Amino acid sequence: MTCPDSIRALDQQDPLKHTRALFELPVETQYLDGNSLGPLPRASRQRLEHVVQQQWGQDLITSWNKHGWIRLSQQVGDKIGTLIGAAPGQVVCCDSTSVNLFKVLSTALQIQAKQGRHRIVSQRDNFPTDLYMVEGLASLLGETRCELVTLDTNQLIDHLDNSVAVLMLTQVNFRTGYCHDMRALTEAAHKAGVLVIWDLAHSAGAMPLSLDEWKVDFAVGCGYKYLNGGPGAPAFVYAASRHHGAHTQPLSGWMGHAKPFEFSPNYTPAPSINQYLCGTPSVLAMSALDAALDVFDGVDLETIRAKSLALSDLFINILQAEECWHEFCLLTPAEHAERGSQVALAHPHGYAITQALIAARCVADFRAPDVIRFGFTPLYLRYEDVWLAAQKLIRIVREQDYLRPEFSKSTAGPVT
Amino acid sequence: MTCPDSIRALDQQDPLKHTRALFELPVETQYLDGNSLGPLPRASRQRLEHVVQQQWGQDLITSWNKHGWIRLSQQVGDKIGTLIGAAPGQVVCCDSTSVNLFKVLSTALQIQAKQGRHRIVSQRDNFPTDLYMVEGLASLLGETRCELVTLDTNQLIDHLDNSVAVLMLTQVNFRTGYCHDMRALTEAAHKAGVLVIWDLAHSAGAMPLSLDEWKVDFAVGCGYKYLNGGPGAPAFVYAASRHHGAHTQPLSGWMGHAKPFEFSPNYTPAPSINQYLCGTPSVLAMSALDAALDVFDGVDLETIRAKSLALSDLFINILQAEECWHEFCLLTPAEHAERGSQVALAHPHGYAITQALIAARCVADFRAPDVIRFGFTPLYLRYEDVWLAAQKLIRIVREQDYLRPEFSKSTAGPVT
Repeated sequence: MTCPDSIRALDQQDPLKHTRALFELPVETQYLDGNSLGPLPRASRQRLEHVVQQQWGQDLITSWNKHGWIRLSQQVGDKIGTLIGAAPGQVVCCDSTSVNLFKVLSTALQIQAKQGRHRIVSQRDNFPTDLYMVEGLASLLGETRCELVTLDTNQLIDHLDNSVAVLMLTQVNFRTGYCHDMRALTEAAHKAGVLVIWDLAHSAGAMPLSLDEWKVDFAVGCGYKYLNGGPGAPAFVYAASRHHGAHTQPLSGWMGHAKPFEFSPNYTPAPSINQYLCGTPSVLAMSALDAALDVFDGVDLETIRAKSLALSDLFINILQAEECWHEFCLLTPAEHAERGSQVALAHPHGYAITQALIAARCVADFRAPDVIRFGFTPLYLRYEDVWLAAQKLIRIVREQDYLRPEFSKSTAGPVT
Repeated sequence: MTCPDSIRALDQQDPLKHTRALFELPVETQYLDGNSLGPLPRASRQRLEHVVQQQWGQDLITSWNKHGWIRLSQQVGDKIGTLIGAAPGQVVCCDSTSVNLFKVLSTALQIQAKQGRHRIVSQRDNFPTDLYMVEGLASLLGETRCELVTLDTNQLIDHLDNSVAVLMLTQVNFRTGYCHDMRALTEAAHKAGVLVIWDLAHSAGAMPLSLDEWKVDFAVGCGYKYLNGGPGAPAFVYAASRHHGAHTQPLSGWMGHAKPFEFSPNYTPAPSINQYLCGTPSVLAMSALDAALDVFDGVDLETIRAKSLALSDLFINILQAEECWHEFCLLTPAEHAERGSQVALAHPHGYAITQALIAARCVADFRAPDVIRFGFTPLYLRYEDVWLAAQKLIRIVREQDYLRPEFSKSTAGPVT
């Protein structure tokens, strides 16, 4: 397959063409799954070598001070802060997105309990683990103190009555790629006396965000998608500084103590974002993420966002011109403001098509029941990659390549 | 300093002399801090190289299946299970010790609520984070459903009345090295209708344990001390199979779901140990720990324990023969059955002595207010190392080397 010159010209003019070299990518592969697992930044590989051989291997326990392990959660947090529009001291890196969500849900409910508000409003098709964490908290508090209400997207604002404590949403839907207007929803929630918790799993590093300016209360997010921190990288938690101090989150481990090295028998929460730390976080995992974040140095998130939309437009446009297009259902909004950094296509043979694509060295992923997800990650994807991916998809569908037995669910196993 | 032949002879006869070569250790250093951070196993370095370059770098998202990332929590859990006397399917590796403690505390309280039991009995000088986690859970449940009672060691059994739900103890005290009789205390608790939760942070990998045989209910522990999994390695959680299924822990993230890849909007806990998983764990961190555990292959924990006691006996005996011994207070029991795998010495200049030792390439650590901790880790420590460490300590104390200004708290910063 020879890529048209018009496509190659887009790559030549791309202001982000230099950042691809910062990653180690498999050859001759179109990796359209950075929305699930970001690829390996060269800097992360080098950093891990140093952390393993010198810091762990030679300097051992002295590295907590000598190599700043003790400050990593805050250092990584502040780097993420610059990507999401948060001034320093409001983000820490630690634990998983789910665990961090439990922390901020607890704090938000405490704040709102004084107003007799106890409901958590969310979307029916929010990322399931977010809903599960509310269920878990409700199992402890009882439904008079914590009640999950899940609604369709267009019902959200109308239901923010004075029983509602929190509006908890994921900005970009993991399945469809639908992107909420975070600013408008936050404003509407505040008008109704409701606090907001945003899950930024599919937003951080993918588009400009202004959490401070938009007066977001709390947010959580993932280190291993658009932030490229490695498989299962630690997550992050944002708490606006106005919410520090007065309330305590219940996962009160020693790292969140005001004076952790005094080993006092009683918990005194740190009067800062540090209160959102719990146990000792993985230095290996956080170091990989710390180095990965440096690929954003000197890169403007507006530029990333513009290229992401151009890439997904190109992908949709190529496919729409093909006869096989009618077999797909495009789940992702055509409107730019409503589109995240992915394109989701439903197809009755979605699972097998995903397998066939991977076999053809075009990595996308599958989400039940029938959705193929294509992630568009401007730091390392070229317009040429998008063109090649589209050609592979067209060929697989046109030739019904996906009907080959090795791509069926029974032989291929789960796609994660 | 020339080590006496009698000491060298002990190393010659040591059945564990071959395992030292499995670690990368700093040269000419006595590393007596493996009870805080285990050193780097060669296998972990090699494994991380493969995980980073091949699995993350090349195989990317397909590694969840291709390289078994999706099974790592259980695989590592079962390896730890063999070290603590747990049959397969009762241990998973995930999160931090603190977070895992929150999970099992919640489950145990649920089980006991039916009997109207709500108190958590623990030791006043338990590792503080364990007490903090109970405080955190109590802040959610209220003190009628969760109340922390901290007692002195000798009061524990007498206070197990019918209000007590759980006896929560750390087997080996982090400061003094005192080791509880886990079997006897578990039996006494059960006789009083009380469930037990053991923190094995300073036990797992250091001594033989028989959790199944002793009918322990729940346990948690640390991956980065005697298990050598690297700084901030993921922790583990043990739940006896008789406690699976009927109760749900509240950190109900997607990895603990019965069918995580169905992305159902409602949480259904896995009817197995998997229910104790929450969010996505770090693959880098778990892989390092997974490889580290293989140093235990073919090694008997009875042999490890016997050598650990011989090492700490040697250390104490050398020091006791010196005049400076009277300056110290030995906090660790002389009785073998009551001694963990460390020796704790209190000294008014404990902080500065620890700094002077580190400067002399003998790594111990300090715990407020005045305790120097020496960890004895038989897989890589030689009798010669213990002799050398003792000589360095004696010289520093005899010559008052610790009075040099660079070892004072104001210049040296915190020892972690």
